[in-house]
Amino acid sequence: MTYGSPALRRAVLLANQTIPEAGLAQLTWGNVSGIDREGGFYLIKPSGVAYHDLTEDHLVPVDLATGKVLAGDLRPSVDSESHRAFYLAWPSIGGVTHTHSTNAVAFAQAGRDVPVLGTTHADTFNGPVPVTRTLTPEECATDYELNTGRVIIETIGDDEAAAAIPAALVANHGPFTWGATPQKSVEHGIILEAVAEMALKTLALNPNAATPPHLQERHFKRKHGPGAYYGNPTA
Amino acid sequence: MTYGSPALRRAVLLANQTIPEAGLAQLTWGNVSGIDREGGFYLIKPSGVAYHDLTEDHLVPVDLATGKVLAGDLRPSVDSESHRAFYLAWPSIGGVTHTHSTNAVAFAQAGRDVPVLGTTHADTFNGPVPVTRTLTPEECATDYELNTGRVIIETIGDDEAAAAIPAALVANHGPFTWGATPQKSVEHGIILEAVAEMALKTLALNPNAATPPHLQERHFKRKHGPGAYYGNPTA
Amino acid sequence: MTYGSPALRRAVLLANQTIPEAGLAQLTWGNVSGIDREGGFYLIKPSGVAYHDLTEDHLVPVDLATGKVLAGDLRPSVDSESHRAFYLAWPSIGGVTHTHSTNAVAFAQAGRDVPVLGTTHADTFNGPVPVTRTLTPEECATDYELNTGRVIIETIGDDEAAAAIPAALVANHGPFTWGATPQKSVEHGIILEAVAEMALKTLALNPNAATPPHLQERHFKRKHGPGAYYGNPTA
Amino acid sequence: MTYGSPALRRAVLLANQTIPEAGLAQLTWGNVSGIDREGGFYLIKPSGVAYHDLTEDHLVPVDLATGKVLAGDLRPSVDSESHRAFYLAWPSIGGVTHTHSTNAVAFAQAGRDVPVLGTTHADTFNGPVPVTRTLTPEECATDYELNTGRVIIETIGDDEAAAAIPAALVANHGPFTWGATPQKSVEHGIILEAVAEMALKTLALNPNAATPPHLQERHFKRKHGPGAYYGNPTA
Repeated sequence: MTYGSPALRRAVLLANQTIPEAGLAQLTWGNVSGIDREGGFYLIKPSGVAYHDLTEDHLVPVDLATGKVLAGDLRPSVDSESHRAFYLAWPSIGGVTHTHSTNAVAFAQAGRDVPVLGTTHADTFNGPVPVTRTLTPEECATDYELNTGRVIIETIGDDEAAAAIPAALVANHGPFTWGATPQKSVEHGIILEAVAEMALKTLALNPNAATPPHLQERHFKRKHGPGAYYGNPTA
Repeated sequence: MTYGSPALRRAVLLANQTIPEAGLAQLTWGNVSGIDREGGFYLIKPSGVAYHDLTEDHLVPVDLATGKVLAGDLRPSVDSESHRAFYLAWPSIGGVTHTHSTNAVAFAQAGRDVPVLGTTHADTFNGPVPVTRTLTPEECATDYELNTGRVIIETIGDDEAAAAIPAALVANHGPFTWGATPQKSVEHGIILEAVAEMALKTLALNPNAATPPHLQERHFKRKHGPGAYYGNPTA
Repeated sequence: MTYGSPALRRAVLLANQTIPEAGLAQLTWGNVSGIDREGGFYLIKPSGVAYHDLTEDHLVPVDLATGKVLAGDLRPSVDSESHRAFYLAWPSIGGVTHTHSTNAVAFAQAGRDVPVLGTTHADTFNGPVPVTRTLTPEECATDYELNTGRVIIETIGDDEAAAAIPAALVANHGPFTWGATPQKSVEHGIILEAVAEMALKTLALNPNAATPPHLQERHFKRKHGPGAYYGNPTA
Repeated sequence: MTYGSPALRRAVLLANQTIPEAGLAQLTWGNVSGIDREGGFYLIKPSGVAYHDLTEDHLVPVDLATGKVLAGDLRPSVDSESHRAFYLAWPSIGGVTHTHSTNAVAFAQAGRDVPVLGTTHADTFNGPVPVTRTLTPEECATDYELNTGRVIIETIGDDEAAAAIPAALVANHGPFTWGATPQKSVEHGIILEAVAEMALKTLALNPNAATPPHLQERHFKRKHGPGAYYGNPTA
């Protein structure tokens, strides 16, 4: 049995291929998943398969309720349980991306939120992209990947909050991003890496840099909510 | 009816395609326009169309006097009103470019002018590339994009000044550049990003770096004005 | 006589070609070797041949016991004696890579270990990637390349230690990495460069950044040892 | 009449094309020349021609003794007089390269020599790559490009010194490099940019970094002089 519509399978494959194309990770690092809410499962990149070898047939269907693999011989990405935690916590998301992109990792390793320093950030993230607390030894010892997902949910909050800031940094690890679709989740990974690089360079030029709240609000509302007018090709 | 000569349409398309090719923006960020002064309109990238899908037929003709779309179903780039303000203020310009290039954005977010630190800068910009003041809450609330254009014009000055320094940084936002043609405007965006990166690295090595005024003047005059002798293939 | 199995020859060629593809060195810098333990020799990149000209026929077979070239007119990479020292000291390794990748060289030149700042590092290197002591004038004057290998072995320790941290930085020089195969050795070079860049940026954001030991241990054990569960495509 | 042998014409074209391929300059910036010592002329890139349009027929022959163009309608690069000064001062060089590569420019703008921090530098440059003094207002006003060449020669010294350190940084401008052939001169430009980036990052990690003199000497002698043994494919 083949899990997932042709559209979902293609979307998950393309979003995974975007990771190396956009320079968000080396080697086999990183992974994207996409969910079929009606079917109660998600498709995720398998563990240890090179991106240039990846096909739709490699995608691993995972049961949303149990985390069990539904078909095939391949193991899901080691981060599968983190993805599952997000899908369970936030009903409106449709895709999840994990990368090791350089500048986002630098903030995660430094234990610093990516601050809102300008409109590039505010167009997508309605506040700082937060870094989680450090996992305890106990959280590392058992159900580590599930606990990684839980600490992000603890940091971000509910479904509405996850839509307002669709990204988080796991302390001493790296970024997770999500969105309405697999492609949106990986686009948020691209944007997070771009704004993290901008922020790192901005702070080198001015350690006290900040954005006025009214400018931040204006830009987020240009793209989100009832008055949004940014990025729609047709009026 | 098709707006714009084949040459103008091709120039605006190519200049837009230069944005991703030169690494000046991610995803659909950024936009270039070019003007038909006799016709009283400019052509600009539509909102939310991916660069690799963009064709001449997508370019949106906008009335210079009113800002209204003259034909087609597509919406112009959200920054259209900023472009329009420049065309009205500066009669000698023929093209406008907006990007979110990393190093220029870093200076914009840091609230610092890009200083004149060497001849790479002075060949094109006859002084620091200035950062605007922050827009007020009122300027953000109503006619935000038009006010973005206005604050740049307030910062740069008249048509002559716009030719001497064909670039500005909007505070906590990013760069706008302009030139005699669409291609020149995007080339100024490439140069601004290059000199911003050089400046950031120079300041890391020497926070007090500066260029002697006589060297700055020499380089600008090599390329501009009656005694210019740089870059002309034929004598 | 042709030295090396077709598989080994192909592996050494591909691993060498990975150096320029992954941006780990300029021009002809860098080299990879792979060993035939039964045959008692290793194949290494010749000195001064451009990567895009390199074929399997250029690979130089070197006697493990004596360091003598076994066939052909080409000279082995100038670093051949360093490679030989590693193969003699560490029986479980199958490939060695030397590059001049920018960020790893920066740490080597700064005389600083690459610290463990996050999971990207801990997944591969079970502790800081150490920088060697400076070679003495005597070690530079005679058998310089052999002494370069020796000072790395002195820094790393025995075969088990070489498996736990498969990389070192020669002071004021650059990185050497190794692994079970030529491809693994160059992958460790890619990872070292990535984590060195992340570390440099992390330290710019937070000079006191560090990783909790329990997180470091968890990640290394995900990929190594009897409980490893990371990166295996099949369960 | 066609100036230059087919080999020289091809070498100068390929070396110029290496500038954009190696990322050493934007747009039409930068230039390479190569000399025919017997013919008493050099071939140089024309001013203002895009690299992707450049052919051998565009190369401009310039008289070594007078600086006059010997044939064709194209003007030589604006930096031609700097190249000519080097050819007159240093009889053993065969090619000259000028770029605006980012990290080398950063050192030039900061007014700092590129220090010898490791073997990557010492393999090619037998000491710091020096930055010139600032040109006086008089030197900028008349014969500016010739004076740019002269101040480099004043900084570097005689033919032997130019072979030992085949590069210099013009203060607040950028790098010039030279070598036995056009290709060698552009390779020195690639190496200078690489070691400048390494140096900038090294100094960020350790402002007091330095290389022991005996290591520096060892590496330069591996590649230069009677005992050289690096980079020769055949023994």
